[in-house]
Amino acid sequence: MSFKLGVVGATGLVGGKILEVLEERNITPQELYLLTTKKSAGLPLYFKGTKIFTREIDVELFSKLDYILFAVGGDVSEEFAPKAVQAGATVIDNSSRFRMAPHVPLVVPEVNPETAKEHQGIIANPNCSTIQLVVPLKYIDDEFGVKRVIVSTYQAVSGSGKAAMKELRKNAALQLAGYYEDTERKAYPKNIEFNCLPHVDDFTESGLTKEELKMINETRKIISPNIKISPTCVRVPVVNGHSEAVTIETEENNINPEKVREVLKTGAGIVVNDNLGENDYPTAIDCDDSDQIYVGRIRKDPTLTNGINLWIVADNLRKGAATNAVQILEYLLQT
Amino acid sequence: MSFKLGVVGATGLVGGKILEVLEERNITPQELYLLTTKKSAGLPLYFKGTKIFTREIDVELFSKLDYILFAVGGDVSEEFAPKAVQAGATVIDNSSRFRMAPHVPLVVPEVNPETAKEHQGIIANPNCSTIQLVVPLKYIDDEFGVKRVIVSTYQAVSGSGKAAMKELRKNAALQLAGYYEDTERKAYPKNIEFNCLPHVDDFTESGLTKEELKMINETRKIISPNIKISPTCVRVPVVNGHSEAVTIETEENNINPEKVREVLKTGAGIVVNDNLGENDYPTAIDCDDSDQIYVGRIRKDPTLTNGINLWIVADNLRKGAATNAVQILEYLLQT
Repeated sequence: MSFKLGVVGATGLVGGKILEVLEERNITPQELYLLTTKKSAGLPLYFKGTKIFTREIDVELFSKLDYILFAVGGDVSEEFAPKAVQAGATVIDNSSRFRMAPHVPLVVPEVNPETAKEHQGIIANPNCSTIQLVVPLKYIDDEFGVKRVIVSTYQAVSGSGKAAMKELRKNAALQLAGYYEDTERKAYPKNIEFNCLPHVDDFTESGLTKEELKMINETRKIISPNIKISPTCVRVPVVNGHSEAVTIETEENNINPEKVREVLKTGAGIVVNDNLGENDYPTAIDCDDSDQIYVGRIRKDPTLTNGINLWIVADNLRKGAATNAVQILEYLLQT
Repeated sequence: MSFKLGVVGATGLVGGKILEVLEERNITPQELYLLTTKKSAGLPLYFKGTKIFTREIDVELFSKLDYILFAVGGDVSEEFAPKAVQAGATVIDNSSRFRMAPHVPLVVPEVNPETAKEHQGIIANPNCSTIQLVVPLKYIDDEFGVKRVIVSTYQAVSGSGKAAMKELRKNAALQLAGYYEDTERKAYPKNIEFNCLPHVDDFTESGLTKEELKMINETRKIISPNIKISPTCVRVPVVNGHSEAVTIETEENNINPEKVREVLKTGAGIVVNDNLGENDYPTAIDCDDSDQIYVGRIRKDPTLTNGINLWIVADNLRKGAATNAVQILEYLLQT
């Protein structure tokens, strides 16, 4: 199918990964426009060996495009996504801005691809920490019924953008060289290097952070409003790749690790790495630059007959953002 | 009270902290013997400005001592602690070797000091991740009744000893300088720098690690066998200081954060840092070299009326090991 594509935020971390994933999956738009804010316009980027200069976001251009992937902050999406829709394009938006809007499908292709068809111009890509949770959760829900989930995250700084990655590396290097007093904090309110902050996105009146509320609300929208989620979101000094320690209470009693392992092994998008005798469990570094979701440490919750504990890892920039958006695009192109 | 003290493992991380804490608390033994394995014998250490040379562990010496603090691995404790008891000394052992033995008190002075009196020669110091959990848990249990605890840990490498601290720093420095291929792994089966490993101590047949089993069994021995614990223990690239994300289900319904905050604020050994508007929550770096246990992010579990979530941080070498052992010694000296 011939189509014209725009990528808004092409010079950002997720934008760059979108170009990589499009290329790897051999998706070839008839025309490709790489759009950015004014500051980053005019830069040369490469797609399949061809140099393409970035252009400033241009509402006039939107009418030439069939699909536009937005990989920018909520403010920019809020301003331009509706204009793109008005101009006739379909938007796949990576920001949190439209995710909970009633008429916007929130799509993880392994979980609820068919909801994408109900879009009214905008389809939302879920939050990174939600995506890697809901894929295994959906398979477990289908088989055993999920009642309640307690999740603690170990989230990489790449989720905060390029400046945060630099801040971690630079501050760590300064500390190791003996210049702790010269470390600077801009990305986070406290030093992240050699530290863990129970603080991802802003705090809200409820005592939960926005990140924690996203995990709760998005998971319910994607799988079922009956699932209860109790999250703690923590930023850790990892460059890329989110990990999650997850406790799941199921409808079915006498759930056991073998059954869960079998279900997950056959699930699209999942790799089970779970052989403790060989220290086989996933970690952030192992999963860097992969499109899969990795699950390990699948074990009985020692406190419940209907409980299972597991450890989930994924590349938050790929499956947690860019890859998921491109998978949605693929689905739309195929249907 | 006049007493003679031995510290076994005086050149180790915890041994060194024991000397610091003894000095800070102005505890002055009539005689102090610093004992080590053969390898570390003959080294000069300082206590209150006096140089003391370390000596190889010597069974003959035990009969001269009233108290011996063991800060060594389980094998060394297993060999020498019973001999120390035979020689008439009282042992406070930091290893896991005797913790679950029926006649060995497992003591956290804020929680169950009186059990120390029942010793038959050996008193065990609990595991670091257990100590910082049971102090707030005990206060919450007394007030609201604790039924079930789900805990995910964020454990620093100092818990694995000096070599692991060096490995983290050295590997991180090599990576930041572009020499990833020269990083070496000895302390852990996978790189710990910029990574999180859901693997603390050895795996067991149950699918749980020994560290996770310690949290379960020790918490039950210290507070109550009725408390159910579901732990995930994770090593993170933090030099010193353990953090824990904790979900607590209580007997009492309608528990709320204000009540919990009030209870914890008055609890000995606890500091509540919980003002989200000012980004006031504890982190490992903030708590380094402190003897207190820090609690923040106290909030309602959004999935239960009888649930509370919180974030606990402590210096695992101080309150998690050395300080707790010295507090036990103080208690014995006072009673």
